[in-house]
Amino acid sequence: MALFHVRMDVKIPHDLDPEVRAETVAREKAYSQELQRSGKWKELWRIVGQYSNISIFDVESADELHELLQGLPLFPYMDMEVMALTRHPSRIDD
Amino acid sequence: MALFHVRMDVKIPHDLDPEVRAETVAREKAYSQELQRSGKWKELWRIVGQYSNISIFDVESADELHELLQGLPLFPYMDMEVMALTRHPSRIDD
Amino acid sequence: MALFHVRMDVKIPHDLDPEVRAETVAREKAYSQELQRSGKWKELWRIVGQYSNISIFDVESADELHELLQGLPLFPYMDMEVMALTRHPSRIDD
Amino acid sequence: MALFHVRMDVKIPHDLDPEVRAETVAREKAYSQELQRSGKWKELWRIVGQYSNISIFDVESADELHELLQGLPLFPYMDMEVMALTRHPSRIDD
Amino acid sequence: MALFHVRMDVKIPHDLDPEVRAETVAREKAYSQELQRSGKWKELWRIVGQYSNISIFDVESADELHELLQGLPLFPYMDMEVMALTRHPSRIDD
Amino acid sequence: MALFHVRMDVKIPHDLDPEVRAETVAREKAYSQELQRSGKWKELWRIVGQYSNISIFDVESADELHELLQGLPLFPYMDMEVMALTRHPSRIDD
Amino acid sequence: MALFHVRMDVKIPHDLDPEVRAETVAREKAYSQELQRSGKWKELWRIVGQYSNISIFDVESADELHELLQGLPLFPYMDMEVMALTRHPSRIDD
Amino acid sequence: MALFHVRMDVKIPHDLDPEVRAETVAREKAYSQELQRSGKWKELWRIVGQYSNISIFDVESADELHELLQGLPLFPYMDMEVMALTRHPSRIDD
Amino acid sequence: MALFHVRMDVKIPHDLDPEVRAETVAREKAYSQELQRSGKWKELWRIVGQYSNISIFDVESADELHELLQGLPLFPYMDMEVMALTRHPSRIDD
Amino acid sequence: MALFHVRMDVKIPHDLDPEVRAETVAREKAYSQELQRSGKWKELWRIVGQYSNISIFDVESADELHELLQGLPLFPYMDMEVMALTRHPSRIDD
Repeated sequence: MALFHVRMDVKIPHDLDPEVRAETVAREKAYSQELQRSGKWKELWRIVGQYSNISIFDVESADELHELLQGLPLFPYMDMEVMALTRHPSRIDD
Repeated sequence: MALFHVRMDVKIPHDLDPEVRAETVAREKAYSQELQRSGKWKELWRIVGQYSNISIFDVESADELHELLQGLPLFPYMDMEVMALTRHPSRIDD
Repeated sequence: MALFHVRMDVKIPHDLDPEVRAETVAREKAYSQELQRSGKWKELWRIVGQYSNISIFDVESADELHELLQGLPLFPYMDMEVMALTRHPSRIDD
Repeated sequence: MALFHVRMDVKIPHDLDPEVRAETVAREKAYSQELQRSGKWKELWRIVGQYSNISIFDVESADELHELLQGLPLFPYMDMEVMALTRHPSRIDD
Repeated sequence: MALFHVRMDVKIPHDLDPEVRAETVAREKAYSQELQRSGKWKELWRIVGQYSNISIFDVESADELHELLQGLPLFPYMDMEVMALTRHPSRIDD
Repeated sequence: MALFHVRMDVKIPHDLDPEVRAETVAREKAYSQELQRSGKWKELWRIVGQYSNISIFDVESADELHELLQGLPLFPYMDMEVMALTRHPSRIDD
Repeated sequence: MALFHVRMDVKIPHDLDPEVRAETVAREKAYSQELQRSGKWKELWRIVGQYSNISIFDVESADELHELLQGLPLFPYMDMEVMALTRHPSRIDD
Repeated sequence: MALFHVRMDVKIPHDLDPEVRAETVAREKAYSQELQRSGKWKELWRIVGQYSNISIFDVESADELHELLQGLPLFPYMDMEVMALTRHPSRIDD
Repeated sequence: MALFHVRMDVKIPHDLDPEVRAETVAREKAYSQELQRSGKWKELWRIVGQYSNISIFDVESADELHELLQGLPLFPYMDMEVMALTRHPSRIDD
Repeated sequence: MALFHVRMDVKIPHDLDPEVRAETVAREKAYSQELQRSGKWKELWRIVGQYSNISIFDVESADELHELLQGLPLFPYMDMEVMALTRHPSRIDD
């Protein structure tokens, strides 16, 4: 398994049609929750004061991660930063 | 409770006495593991290719977080980036 | 209680409808003053030469701060920078 | 009166003589507290996770501010960022 | 008196109505010349190759400076950088 | 398998003992060539005008990559930038 | 022959006509595959989580590279970063 | 005479009328060639992979340079970076 | 004549011999005052809170400016930023 | 032939032995002049106010350029920025 740290900053254009916007945000939520249920989207937090999140993905491979991220309904409106993670030598569990 | 995302980049000067260095790194590990056992240092990952970590702290307050971080034996040799986290509206659990 | 330092840079798109703009700015002012009266928006200054402010928030938690910031009528048009504060060891009062 | 927002990041060289360091830090604290008592150093907070502070100065003029900052015992070891502040139109008091 | 160094970068949107643009630029010029005559806008230079200026303001206070800058007809279309100045110890005059 | 793009910028301190330096650089070369022979260090180029390289690693996992990078004799003297790669949809082979 | 490392970040404006967009992306793919078949576009990877690629070009000259890049149907919508590469002294083959 | 190094990055808005665009680019070329013939625009190169150029101007003064640059038909659509040059002490000619 | 805007940030190494430091700073002051008297170093201000100055030079040419700057006793310890200035079209005098 | 634009910023450590420094600078000058005579180091200018140069190299290939740059006696003390150049379509000669 492969662990990735992803920061997503959402930047929806102000002139996007409000219905398209609402529908896209709703699909994003459903998609995200489905991935959380599958265990692949392992952690998800909101950064205080930002329309941004910090996520931890636990996937088969970087290829699978790209498939998942690219499938996000808000993908065209997000800046993403991806970092591969590994076990920390001081970590007590796992 | 308060959740914080911390990135620590370790930059030990090359001319630090090797014994001081080894002893400081050992104390850092013990200190980190004690905080992990207490549940306050909730997550700890190594960033691939970096002498850096991503950590999640689950503390009483920002004041407590500062106490903990400042107590790190490697604190004088680290660049830190701290972000407050909050619940994400799409999160399925908690 | 938790203390946060927030910088807000307002960037209203030039093509926003002037009435929407005026109404949003008016609601922002009312909302801000209500939070100031409650004691949660503890300090508020304008940065000279900028359409920006420096604010100090005194809230229950980072979660409450996010609720407040997200509720700002100008939130979609602002860049925000949030830093958690703690007591300075040289501070004479409190 | 003139209000200024100052961020100070302390970067004491690792090879500074420990006695010089301790003595400088002690003088810094005394100097800071004297200015706080005079009302000129109006606010002082520690940034969580940083050897840095956010300060508000309430002085006669920018000239006086420079005198005060330049007199800080740690001045040679600090990066400073100074911004002039003014009254915010939404502020309820003063 | 208080001395400030201001850099202004003009970024008028390409789709601004040409008449509005011309009229705004004309008002900016008149406003600037009035402030120069009053002695408050003490120096004004164009940066070579840029639609930008370097200005020195000599005002009663930072509050007055903010009033003046905010009143610039091009204010909504400019990025500003403000620095407080003070007497240099090597300066021979004043 | 997992593909990673790594940029390494070598910054050996000027005051490092010349013998230590020469010996470390020699070990780095041997280590690198061993990894190239194993197929894990798949591509290696010098950036023109820089003491830097661009590398492609083809490894079992990000965990293995971290082990390999951390084992580089020059690791303490390098800045690294790691990016996970995946198949490009326009790629003709593989 | 000359080797170049190119990073391309695709930034298609959100308001581009969807048909123009689809047709441009299709022509880009055909053009890219033709260059790959010719051996000039030697490597092509997608960066995980980004609408970006890392490419290696193997061309006669920088002049030829510019011709190729400028001919890309998506050229007006891409940020490019070009670096000349050369043989690495530790490389085992070639 | 005064020598200046100028980098120009052309950023024509995607929604500019194609005829206006073509006509502006044509006037830019004519204007540039006239200045090259006069000897004032001494060198002109394209940066590989960019819609950018590196230019050397040989003019009477910085004032003249600003007049020339400001007169460029593409001036409103370019980011410019200007550096004054002087004779290098190791230069063999002139 | 040619007008230049120069920002100088002084960064004297902490381990410089105190006598060398004092003597260099004294020579810098004398040199600066001589150039001010000649009219070439036309303006000189301290930036509040910084060991930095903003200067205006009024010289024959960029070549002369470089000679002057390079002759500064603190030149090896300063970061410099140089911008050519020209007359602003809204300027009322000169 | 291949044309490259190189910016070199010289950063010699303050504690380098003065004799080593003088001898290295002298060798750099001789090396540079030899390359200028060969026609490979085609242009060389000093940036005003900086210990930096802008150079144009006219070489067989990027490989040759790297050999030349790496052979500079000051190479270990310089930051370099290399850009490949090509013919500009508006250029009148060549």
